[in-house]
Amino acid sequence: MNETLALLMNHRSIRKFADKPVSEDQLKTIIVAGQMASSSSNVQAYSVIAVTEAGLKKRLAELSGNQAYVEECPVFLVWCADLHRLKYCADLHAPGQPTYEDTAENLIVATVDTALAAQNAAVAAESLGLGIVYIGGIRNRIEEVSQLLELPDRVYPVFGMCVGVPAQEPMLRPRLPVEAVLHRNRYDGRKHAAEVARYDETMSAYLRERTGGKQDTPWSRLMADRLVQPVRMHMKDFLENRGFFRR
Amino acid sequence: MNETLALLMNHRSIRKFADKPVSEDQLKTIIVAGQMASSSSNVQAYSVIAVTEAGLKKRLAELSGNQAYVEECPVFLVWCADLHRLKYCADLHAPGQPTYEDTAENLIVATVDTALAAQNAAVAAESLGLGIVYIGGIRNRIEEVSQLLELPDRVYPVFGMCVGVPAQEPMLRPRLPVEAVLHRNRYDGRKHAAEVARYDETMSAYLRERTGGKQDTPWSRLMADRLVQPVRMHMKDFLENRGFFRR
Repeated sequence: MNETLALLMNHRSIRKFADKPVSEDQLKTIIVAGQMASSSSNVQAYSVIAVTEAGLKKRLAELSGNQAYVEECPVFLVWCADLHRLKYCADLHAPGQPTYEDTAENLIVATVDTALAAQNAAVAAESLGLGIVYIGGIRNRIEEVSQLLELPDRVYPVFGMCVGVPAQEPMLRPRLPVEAVLHRNRYDGRKHAAEVARYDETMSAYLRERTGGKQDTPWSRLMADRLVQPVRMHMKDFLENRGFFRR
Repeated sequence: MNETLALLMNHRSIRKFADKPVSEDQLKTIIVAGQMASSSSNVQAYSVIAVTEAGLKKRLAELSGNQAYVEECPVFLVWCADLHRLKYCADLHAPGQPTYEDTAENLIVATVDTALAAQNAAVAAESLGLGIVYIGGIRNRIEEVSQLLELPDRVYPVFGMCVGVPAQEPMLRPRLPVEAVLHRNRYDGRKHAAEVARYDETMSAYLRERTGGKQDTPWSRLMADRLVQPVRMHMKDFLENRGFFRR
């Protein structure tokens, strides 16, 4: 065990923040550490919008399913997959030539680049004593979020991230048994039944403790409930309209 | 500065590995640390195939554009977006009910979950003195890779990752100026011209130093060259066939 491993193993999402700022120095350190993550062919296909204006945070909280912590955190980062900057480069050096930024491949490249940088930034923030929570809810009304933040075509908000000084210490949430996600040399789907059953027990116990006995729905039941619901069915049209995954 | 920040700031991709193993303990520590990353609604929609068989690594190296380090590293991790496990949960609790795993939204969820876990794992590996490099090349012949690793539908290999003891110490690769990727409250595309020009100078100097003066192509030129090429044009059909991004 070392200091970094201890930090990674201690991650929990923070949804209550102290009324304290994140300094400009801290913000830049977090983003620069994010930038040091690997990037596919060094394309660095992402941008981050640091939202600190109170009115904007309030509106983003509403657009993300009324998650109060989006408004309450001192800095709300909107992590965007960004192929616009690359298109600028192509226009500069190869004006008029057809370009291929709108492929499925480049959606994957830009989305992965964004997530790698964001996770490095999350680790950096936590190493500074700050807390974070990822906000997938910014995809609920992604068109309005994109207009609000003046995102051009070829840029889409992948997720938000609240950053601030933690004012809570939630329980660690147990993860799937390592052997449920780790396969040896080939994918082995036969193990799902036993591993998921094992995790169901772990998660039911965790939920009982966290809710004082009020809830203990097994994880697999929660996942089934989620999968039978249509969620954010606008994403395909939105992404295609903005210039992603067209071919 | 703290130990974790120092580690993040010191990342470089490793493409030469010592002839030394990664232990089972190290592998599990790396994956468990990966699992501690955030996950959208705790779906944990990823799997990792740890490839250690020599024949498999050799074949994967060929399928990834003949990158020798894929064969030479002691462990090659294939990080997969995995909606198959969730579908198993739905079949268990809601057999026969229509499910929505095949949406654009769930491609994003699974791809992001995979990347967050992988980046945590990368940081964990580096904290143990190991080196890593991401391999996007496994998407070159993704259908054959998927068959080789026996991936079921609703699972796709997002990227590989070589892990091992470093046998080189490459130069740190400079990233875009922080203000090129960091926007304040709203996206500001006007800054691309100046920031990209600044980075072009930085990268040309870096390339000159790294290649002993043989190469100094500006970054924006490399990006333009990349964008006018059709790359991995099979990805849309592949993903749709495997049950992703269908609606």
